[in-house]
Order: sequence, then C-alpha cells, then structure tokens
Amino acid sequence: MIQASVCTIGDEILIGQVVDTNSSRIARALGEAGIPVRSMVSVGDSREAILDALRRELSKSSIVITTGGLGPTKDDITKDVLGELSGSTRMVENPQQREIMEQILSSRGLQVLESNRRQAWVPERCEVIPNKLGTAPIMSFTADNGSVLYALPGVPHEAAGALPDVLEHIRRRFAINDICHRNVMVYGLAESALSELIAPWEDALPPEIHLAYLPDPLKGIRLRLSIYSGTSAKENALIDSELEKLKSILGNRIYSDADDTLEATVGRIFKENGLTLAAAESCTGGEIAHLLTTVSGASEYFLGSVTSYAIKVKEEVLGVPAETIEKFGVVSEEGAIAMAKGVRRLLGSDYSVATTGLAGAEGDGRNPGGTVWIAVAGPNGEKAHKFSYHNDRKRNIQRFAATALDFLRLFVLSELNA
Amino acid sequence: MIQASVCTIGDEILIGQVVDTNSSRIARALGEAGIPVRSMVSVGDSREAILDALRRELSKSSIVITTGGLGPTKDDITKDVLGELSGSTRMVENPQQREIMEQILSSRGLQVLESNRRQAWVPERCEVIPNKLGTAPIMSFTADNGSVLYALPGVPHEAAGALPDVLEHIRRRFAINDICHRNVMVYGLAESALSELIAPWEDALPPEIHLAYLPDPLKGIRLRLSIYSGTSAKENALIDSELEKLKSILGNRIYSDADDTLEATVGRIFKENGLTLAAAESCTGGEIAHLLTTVSGASEYFLGSVTSYAIKVKEEVLGVPAETIEKFGVVSEEGAIAMAKGVRRLLGSDYSVATTGLAGAEGDGRNPGGTVWIAVAGPNGEKAHKFSYHNDRKRNIQRFAATALDFLRLFVLSELNA
Repeated sequence: MIQASVCTIGDEILIGQVVDTNSSRIARALGEAGIPVRSMVSVGDSREAILDALRRELSKSSIVITTGGLGPTKDDITKDVLGELSGSTRMVENPQQREIMEQILSSRGLQVLESNRRQAWVPERCEVIPNKLGTAPIMSFTADNGSVLYALPGVPHEAAGALPDVLEHIRRRFAINDICHRNVMVYGLAESALSELIAPWEDALPPEIHLAYLPDPLKGIRLRLSIYSGTSAKENALIDSELEKLKSILGNRIYSDADDTLEATVGRIFKENGLTLAAAESCTGGEIAHLLTTVSGASEYFLGSVTSYAIKVKEEVLGVPAETIEKFGVVSEEGAIAMAKGVRRLLGSDYSVATTGLAGAEGDGRNPGGTVWIAVAGPNGEKAHKFSYHNDRKRNIQRFAATALDFLRLFVLSELNA
Repeated sequence: MIQASVCTIGDEILIGQVVDTNSSRIARALGEAGIPVRSMVSVGDSREAILDALRRELSKSSIVITTGGLGPTKDDITKDVLGELSGSTRMVENPQQREIMEQILSSRGLQVLESNRRQAWVPERCEVIPNKLGTAPIMSFTADNGSVLYALPGVPHEAAGALPDVLEHIRRRFAINDICHRNVMVYGLAESALSELIAPWEDALPPEIHLAYLPDPLKGIRLRLSIYSGTSAKENALIDSELEKLKSILGNRIYSDADDTLEATVGRIFKENGLTLAAAESCTGGEIAHLLTTVSGASEYFLGSVTSYAIKVKEEVLGVPAETIEKFGVVSEEGAIAMAKGVRRLLGSDYSVATTGLAGAEGDGRNPGGTVWIAVAGPNGEKAHKFSYHNDRKRNIQRFAATALDFLRLFVLSELNA
C-alpha cells in the first residue's frame, strides 16, 4: 500500500516558537486522496539531520512531503540537501518560477534582490512545480527505490496552495484508488451519545463503507463515510442512500453535509433567507462576532454586536432592566433573554443571539464555573438554554461560542419551518 | 550535550484531525531549561510504529518525552509498549494515581468504570509521576543506555501541567546547566528594522550572552537573552545591565520585560491606573474584545465593545455622522476617529480603541485590501494612524487587532507620562 511521510524542516519548530499546522493540513489532504500518513517528523536546519530523516523516510514511504527551509536566507538549506539527495551536480534556473517571483515582488513594490534571484535556481535533477503564491519553487525528485519526494514552502498558505498540484502529480505517478468521501457535520452530541444513537444504522452499513468519528471543539463531530474503491455513480449512489438514512435519524443535528463550519452554515441560512443578525456577548467577549466575521461576505447579514462586559453596559446600552440583574443575577435565563432582546432592538436585526456565563473555573455563588446561558430572539419571541462545560477559560469561551451558534441555527430553522 | 526528542502518539495526529500543540509547548519548556530538542516525531497507535520510533529516539537522545496514547480505550496502547520497552513483566497498581482518579471522577459526578481503574495500573519497572489534572499517570523509565523516557498524557492542559514535575525529575537525573533567561517583548518593528536598530548594542554584547529573535504575529518579536552557565547573582546582574541598555534604545517599543502578551500588558496598564476601556470594531469583528477578555480579571477595566459591521450600526449606535462616511468613506481617518469617540461616549469609558479597514484581499476603490485605520480616544483627544498588511483574511484580522492594542498602549502611556 502506498504510504506517505510528512517532514517539517526548521529550527523554529524544534525550539517551540511555531506550532506546525502544515503537517496536519497535508495529512488531511493525503487522507482524503486515500494515502495514509505513516509518520511525521520535524528536524532542524542541519544538513545531517535533514539527510538522515529524509533518507529514512524515503526508504519506508513511497511519498515524502517536506515543508520549510526554502526561504532566501542562509539558514534555509533544504534546497542544497535536495541537490545532494537527488544526485544533482549543479543548479539551473527555472524561468517560470523566476517570472512569478518578479511579478510578486513588483506587485508589493519590492526590488528583486540577489537572494530572491537565487530562489529560482533549483538542483538540475529536481522537477519544478511552480508556486503561484510565493517566491520559492516546489521541487520534486524520484529516489533510487522509486519513492518520490516533494519539497513545499513552509509558509502555511503557500503550502496549502501547493497541495492540489502536488496531489495531481502524485496521481500521475502512483496507482491510487479513487475514494468516495462524504463528510457530515454534527453538533450538540457527545461522541458516545452520537455513537449510541446511530448504532443500528452503523451496524447495518454495507461492508465497503467505512465510518470515522472526528471530533473538534469548534465544529462538533465530523462523520466521514468513505468507499475506498472508486468514485463511479455506483459508489456515489450507495453513499448517498446511507446518508439519507443518517439524515432521517439525526435530522437538524446535522448542520452540514459538506465539510463546513458552524459560522459558515449560520451565515448561509441568514443570507439565503435575507435575514439579519446581531449578537450580545458577555462571557464569550467577542468570540461569536469574531467567528461570524471570519466568513467572507458576512457583512451581508451580520449587522454587528455589543460585548457587554460591564453590568453598566448591559443596563445602559442593551437595556437589561436593573431589577432583572438584581433578582436573577447576570448569569441567568432572564439576563440572557434581556440581552438578546436588547441588542436586537438596538441594532434593528431580525434575529439575535446572546451569551452570559462564567468562562473561568470560579463560580459566582449561584452558578459553578463553566456555566453559560444562551438566548436567541427573533420576530416571534425568545428562547434560552443553560449549558455547562468543564475546560479551561479559553476552551470554555470557544465551546460557549460554538454552542451559541448552533442554538441560534436550530432556533432560526424551527421558525423558518414553522 | 544532553538533547531531547519529543514523540506524539496517536492516529488523530497522523490523519490530520488534530494539530499537535503539545510538542511545541514541550520544546519551549525544554529550551528554557537549556535542553535542545533534536527531533520531533509523530506516529500512529500501532505497536510496531511506536516501538520503532521510541527505540530509535532513545538511542539518539538522552531524554525522550512522549504524549498521547494513555487514555482508557482499547486503541491507547502506549502503556503496553512502555511495558515491553522497560522490560516489565507485569502491571502494578499505583495507589496515588488511583486516589486522584477517583477524586476527579467523583467531582464530576461520574462513576469509576473498570476502564478507569485500569488507568492506575502501570508496568512494574515504570516510575510514576502523579498526574494531578487527569486520570492517566505520567510514567518514566531508564533505558539500558541511560536515556530516560517520560510518557505524558495527550490532553494539552494535562501535558502542560505535567511539565514542571517532569523537568524537576530531569534535573535530578542529568547534569543540566542552569540557564539565565530574560525575554523582552517588542511590537511595531519588522525583524530587519529591529535588527538594524539594535545592531551596535548586539555587536557589543558580552560573548556569554546569547540573543535570539522570536517573531509571532500576535505578539510581535520576543528578544531572548540567555547565559548558559549559571543563574547566580553575577549572571543576573550582567543580563540586567544589558537589558537596561536595550530599554534605553527601544523605549516604549518594549511592551514587556516578562514573557507577556499585548492584551495582558494593556490590561495591566488600565488596571494599575484605575482606567476603563471600550472598543469599536469593524474589520476586526470582535477579535480585539476577544483578546482582551481572554485575560482573567478583564472585567475590572474592560467595559465592553461594539462590533459595527453594518454602516447603519456605525451611524445609529456609535453616532458616526453620515456625512463623514459619505465624504471620507468608511475606511478613513475620520471614520475611525468618529467610531472611537462614539463608543467612548456610549459606554462611558476613559479610553477607547477603534478599527475600520479591509481584512480581505479586495480593496474598496479608495484603499487596497489589507488597509486598516486605527483610532484611539481619551479624555484629552483622539489620534489615528493607517497601517497596511499583506496576509490572508484571518491573519490580517489578527495583525490589525494586535496593532490596535499596541497603538492604544502607546497612546495611553504617552498621556500618563504627559
């Protein structure tokens, strides 16, 4: 079976200055293409360490993908090591990459330095896949045992941008089974509860369909259905029919049958129905607005939000009655609903979502740490619910925000279907 | 020289479902203790792969730290492999970890299952370092060549929580030089500009002081000064005197001489001076408020914020005059200042910060993508500045927010010193 290794090159990873996000993105793309990753390795900018790791991985995996070490500075030595490994004796200039490099630098108003010019030179035995997003070329060569190495830049968006071309190259070189994949995104169920709920369906799945549970704090659980033998109409129809059965079991718990985020799903619902949204955030402190506005085009439906950290702001800006806070406390059903109603009125939106809770470990005397009240308001009324989580402050804020987006989604869907 | 390897165990890393943040945190802690990391490796939940990787790393590094594979489910096989590697022939129960496990489960209202009970059993030749934060014990054993392996849980806050105990254990086993470290955080200068500015000071540094530049998009540049031979009064005094010289060159560009974040530094300034803060966010969409509220105790100075994504919200909630927007556009000095003044008035804060810009690649006809106007307002007036960045949407939002916090910091400091 064709397997892959992913190697990260650079001192900045080994000293812990940078978290390596390239490897997981590459592994995901390889996995979707049906190529399992056997190992991941990170080594520093040292000739011996790079040679040692790449020789070992090339001897064990048919495909080795590296990132990093292709920059214009002296400590970037990946290219020299590739020359040595590929048996190249000289460097040649790649005219295509030179042209891209000159275009990129001139578009930023920068001069082409000697160090930039050197980036377009590659070991003679390396094939070049042009990097349209940066100045360093993507290089590939075949080792004596037939294994193929691909060297990608370390800049995350350049590495990600290179993947489609690299995968196409891999498909031309290796016989890789086409894979039929479908992702279903589920929120609001623990993995064990979901597993119990869909057990009869899972047990009755045709043997060629593989099911994976992939949990994520901000996205819920991704259920991935795969058939590893083809992408013809037959496989697609088989997966589609099982998907329909799953949808009839889980209903609205499924927020996307593509590989989507909650914030993009909420955005799509609002956009398609011509609705507008506002948020009032206490304990989530801006995270809901931040998530919503990472989606390009959010200005079409998201009017804005109020982060009401101080009680005074809850009362004076959002119009939460002082008596409500005095009687029920800030973290309460009544408090959350008053915030949601207040921001909807203030910003003039169709719908609103509000959070009030305790993200840290400490309670407020009425509620333990990790408690959040989430409320939604719309043209036909309001609704609130209490949730509890047991993580640290930052993780609780993320979970509160994701749960608020899901609670809003279910509320708006129920109103649209009413 | 003592070197370390960091190994991550678990299929969820190899399929790209989870980004490995443990390794960089462990590498940072080892580096601060004066132990360089030679390599990082990730392998799946397979006996052969784990054995192969750990044997290789134990033969090359004096210290091997693993994370993951210690959970209660069947796919967690790290403990069995440790038994094999350590030459243990049976498992023994660790009473201390059993007690911790029972306490943790009962505090969450959970029953102790057979699978939990098994977690307190460890290979007889493994030493246990109790894990106070979770149910799986931290294990350690010494290989035949004298190298020592430490197995930490994969849950990030448990792995991080285990590090002080593990480092203490390492110091008892290996002769590790004490290291004198000092971190200085600088914002608002590119690495090349900073390097040029401090070149005369850097060139005149005593040879025993090592300087490292560690850039980060949200934090700016961390300058780390280290002496690798001791932590006595002599080394401390030497580093302190060089630090004073550096401060006289960089002045307020240094926002912290501890390893702090911009949001914590801003928070400290506001708290110490009894001041309050509000924010008005357009293109940053809640990220400034989110950063400020990740700091525990932020409610003492941060009153709240308005995310004014829609023009209507800028006009009606923040009181930005329609003529200002018509004449100068939303992304303008006048627009930013009106937002800052508006939110300061609305929330009744001492100071405020506002952003308006274009986080995506597209321009608005007047400004190219990546442009942001940042304004601050206070009791004595307002100030605004335009900044430009060239990243993708998410990265631009982060840079805009960090730059806004720094601009606010410099403004408030200048007013306090006036």
